[in-house]
Amino acid sequence: MSDAPAGTTALDLVAFDEDPMALRTVFAQFPSGVAALSAVIDGEPVVLVASSFQVGISLDPPLVLFAVQHTSSSWPKLKKNDRIGVSVLGEAHDLAARQLASKAADRFAGIETTTTESGAHFIHGAPVWIECSIYSEVPAGDHDVVLLQVHAMGTAPDTEPLVWHSSGFRTLTPKAVV
Amino acid sequence: MSDAPAGTTALDLVAFDEDPMALRTVFAQFPSGVAALSAVIDGEPVVLVASSFQVGISLDPPLVLFAVQHTSSSWPKLKKNDRIGVSVLGEAHDLAARQLASKAADRFAGIETTTTESGAHFIHGAPVWIECSIYSEVPAGDHDVVLLQVHAMGTAPDTEPLVWHSSGFRTLTPKAVV
Repeated sequence: MSDAPAGTTALDLVAFDEDPMALRTVFAQFPSGVAALSAVIDGEPVVLVASSFQVGISLDPPLVLFAVQHTSSSWPKLKKNDRIGVSVLGEAHDLAARQLASKAADRFAGIETTTTESGAHFIHGAPVWIECSIYSEVPAGDHDVVLLQVHAMGTAPDTEPLVWHSSGFRTLTPKAVV
Repeated sequence: MSDAPAGTTALDLVAFDEDPMALRTVFAQFPSGVAALSAVIDGEPVVLVASSFQVGISLDPPLVLFAVQHTSSSWPKLKKNDRIGVSVLGEAHDLAARQLASKAADRFAGIETTTTESGAHFIHGAPVWIECSIYSEVPAGDHDVVLLQVHAMGTAPDTEPLVWHSSGFRTLTPKAVV
């Protein structure tokens, strides 16, 4: 541990003053993958796009999570199905991500999908697919944290993920060839 | 919604069979920012590096979270301090991240830091700093999900974040100049 030498940019912490825009600006600088959570219910696909999705929450049992606003209209519908399909969006999915998160009448127009017998609904071209069920829902301020248990999974390791950062979609630089 | 046309790679889901390595391989394909959580306690810095950190969990109150293994030896020490400093690691922090996560006697050797009066401990060169306290701890299998409430924050928007992906550190491609 060392103190900052002269000339180093000071670390400028500002107290949280209940300004949600300032908070959003800070949160926006954290990079995250993007997940589309979907199921086909009564013959219609329901989808929710989350930049708060996270994996590696537990290995035994295998758990992932995301946070959903109390005002979400999609989540009360989606949670009716026992199984939910999670597709981690790939770098070619930037337009698909915007369409899936929109209020379009057919959010899946032009998007290839697969539905399992359980109704879990997946998007093609994703680097990661996870079929899961609700493990628990935990109150977290104006959201609930939803813990999801993994039942089946798949990957396409050559497909690079989309990254949400600075209020836009980014991609990763190519891996160094060693 | 459309069915897969002939020739499209099938979505290959495999049931989770309690093989933790297969699960880790799937989780590894999800991209995430990396956070160093730190406080100075009894004059010594304690640090925990988390790739399960996530922001935007709630705006009112402002909450972030991470998942910590029940076997963690750092967390029982770190949680003794009322305030914890979260530094989201920047793209130049790849070596620092490995050192901070190591068993080195001085994990902060050569790393510039700032400590607030509360003992929250921050790493220079980060794109995001958040000073927080524990809001709640929620059981999640072999981990606990720790919800942290934001009290102060800062950003360096020109500093790009480090991304954990495919068991290595990656960086983002430059933003398109419009």
